[in-house]
Order: sequence, then C-alpha cells, then structure tokens
Amino acid sequence: MQAKNEETMKILMECLDACNNCFDSCLQEDDVKMMAECIRLDRECADVCANTMNVITRNSPFLNDYLELCAKVCEQCAEECGKHEHEHCKRCAESCRKCAEACRKLVA
Amino acid sequence: MQAKNEETMKILMECLDACNNCFDSCLQEDDVKMMAECIRLDRECADVCANTMNVITRNSPFLNDYLELCAKVCEQCAEECGKHEHEHCKRCAESCRKCAEACRKLVA
Amino acid sequence: MQAKNEETMKILMECLDACNNCFDSCLQEDDVKMMAECIRLDRECADVCANTMNVITRNSPFLNDYLELCAKVCEQCAEECGKHEHEHCKRCAESCRKCAEACRKLVA
Amino acid sequence: MQAKNEETMKILMECLDACNNCFDSCLQEDDVKMMAECIRLDRECADVCANTMNVITRNSPFLNDYLELCAKVCEQCAEECGKHEHEHCKRCAESCRKCAEACRKLVA
Repeated sequence: MQAKNEETMKILMECLDACNNCFDSCLQEDDVKMMAECIRLDRECADVCANTMNVITRNSPFLNDYLELCAKVCEQCAEECGKHEHEHCKRCAESCRKCAEACRKLVA
Repeated sequence: MQAKNEETMKILMECLDACNNCFDSCLQEDDVKMMAECIRLDRECADVCANTMNVITRNSPFLNDYLELCAKVCEQCAEECGKHEHEHCKRCAESCRKCAEACRKLVA
Repeated sequence: MQAKNEETMKILMECLDACNNCFDSCLQEDDVKMMAECIRLDRECADVCANTMNVITRNSPFLNDYLELCAKVCEQCAEECGKHEHEHCKRCAESCRKCAEACRKLVA
Repeated sequence: MQAKNEETMKILMECLDACNNCFDSCLQEDDVKMMAECIRLDRECADVCANTMNVITRNSPFLNDYLELCAKVCEQCAEECGKHEHEHCKRCAESCRKCAEACRKLVA
C-alpha cells in the first residue's frame, strides 16, 4: 500500500467498523426510536467509508470528490452520535471525527 | 473491533488494495490485452472484499455466505494473477490466496 | 440491455426501492423497536439487489453466486416483512418474493 | 416508487447497464490498450450509478451530493467514450450524457 494512503485506509476501516457496530448495537437497544437518526447515519457513513477505501486504492480520478463526501457524511454522523451516551455512539462519534479529518487532509 | 475479526479485516483491506493496485497497473501496461481477464477479476475481487468488510462489521445474518463468495472470488483472481510475471500480479495473487484462506477460516 | 436480463433488472430495481422505502419508513414508525430486524434485513436486501444489478450487467463470472445469494437474502427479508401489517412492509415482502423467484429463475 | 424518482431510476439503470456493457466489451476488443481509460471510467461510472440508485431510494440526507458526483462521473465517462467509434462506446456515451442531465435536474 502506498505509504501516504496506509494511515487513511486504517482510519477508514476503523470508522467503517465503528459505524456498523453502532448500527447493530442501536438496533438492539431498548429505546430504538431514540436511535433512529443514528441508525440512518451509521448506514450512510459505513457505506461511504467502504466506497472510499475502494476508490483510494484504485487510483480513481474522483478520489478528492469521494474524500470530501466521506468527510461530510462522517461529520454529520459524528454530530448525531455525539448526542447519545451509549458507548457505541461515543466510539462512533470519535472514529467519525478522526476519519473526517483524515479525509480532508488527504484532499489537501 | 472484535478481536476475532480484526485480523481478517486487515487481510481483506490488504487484498482490496492489492487487487485495485493490480487493476490500475494492468491498465497502464504495454500489453493490456494480455491482462484483460486479470483486470476483470481484480474488479470482482476488490468489490467483494469491500463488501465483505462492510458485512463482517454489521453483524450480518449472511456473513458466512459473503465469506464463502469472497473466498471463491479470491481463489479465481489468485489463479489468473498467478499466470503473470508482473510484480503487481504476484503481490495480488499472494494477497488473494491469504484472503481466501482467512475467509474460509472465519466461516468454520 | 440483453433481453433475458431486462425483466430481472426491473424486478431488482423494484426490490431495491421497496426495501429502502421500508427501511426509511420503519425508522419513522412509532414503535421502531418492533421493526428492528426489518430494518436490518431491508439494508441487507437493498445492498445485495444493488450489487446484483451491477454484477448482472458486467458479465461477471460469479453471476450465479450473486443471484443465489440475492435470492436467499430476499427470502429472509420477505419472511420478516411478512410479519408486519404496515403497507411498506407488505409491499417489501411482495417485491422480495418476486425478486427471489426471478433470481432463481435466471440461475437455472 | 415515488413518481419524481422513477424516471431517474430508469435512466440510472440504463447507464449502469451501458457502462458495464462497455467495460465488458472493451476487455474483449483487439486493441484493449486504446480502451484503457474507457475501462477505468466505465467502472467508476457503473459504481456511482449503482450507489446513487441505492441512495435515492433510502431517502438519504446526502442525495444531492451523490447526484452531483454521479453527474460529474457520467460527464467524464461520456467524454472518454465519445472518442471511440465502437457501438458499445457510443451507446455508453449517450446513456452517460442522459444520466448526467437527469441527475442535475433532480438536484435542482
């Protein structure tokens, strides 16, 4: 893996994991209704992270566009998860913020 | 990340990277025609690896199905890449074989 | 589009739409908890339908594997959605059953 | 399916099919080297069309972002395919232009 991408790839993988873990955990909470927007954004964020990992490694002409989209989705997912006290939400919010930052840095 | 999944996730990420790097490199070779099936299988394999990473982390009821499909695609991609002498093909074949093995192991 | 695939593609598109509509509608229900497994399976089914549409049109060597996986996921999603009285669930169950049948027919 | 989305969904499906058909056909041409950028962009465009179909139907908060990305990829794919005389390239270029237009219209 190209050195400049390796760290970002790991961060995207962590974020994919944190978002999907949050998605799965939210669906098992007692109060699922409170988690509805979290569930929606977890899916959005997991998918864009998986796509971005694919895009980075294939030398896509649209890498920067995907990185910017990924950063935007991560930021909104972090904001929503940040409203909840569950451990899976806190971990997700942190991973999303880190991932947004990494994506924006790779664009620049 | 769950400990039992972490090693497989890293191997899937390596395989995604190796397949997409091989796809991109094949497209830049002098004799692209010779690489046509390699290009086709690299895409297949990169996509199933990215999907499987998404599936593992979301606690999918279909995890084993995706793992078996991923192993099958990896094996065919490894066989095709193994026919070529280019460094990117050799690296891809090796990553694919390792990934197929990891997927089959996680099913069991 | 190849004639033999066109009907299946339309059915996959209908199923993708019905699953994602059900996902979105479930998240807006009063009793989201009751819909948790529906939400999980809607996502699984929407994703495998979108993937299968991509796979059918690229002449993939793994078409039959994806069709069988798609049929399996559709059947489980139909079973879960069939337990609920909401219109979006009924429509989703019907689309999933039709899609499973179309996928199995294309394999044969 | 919501009426305002149905026409766009069909156009996205046609574009997905045309791009993947072009990808597959390019790989079978005598002069694959000449088609290398076409192959790369066909993959990019097929993937973003499939993603956008998924995004439209799930009521994503990021619909406009995906539509804009999809339009951009379609336009570049149309430009590349428009350089070639093969029937599959001409059909792909036409589908991509139509799809770009439909995506931009749905954003507005």
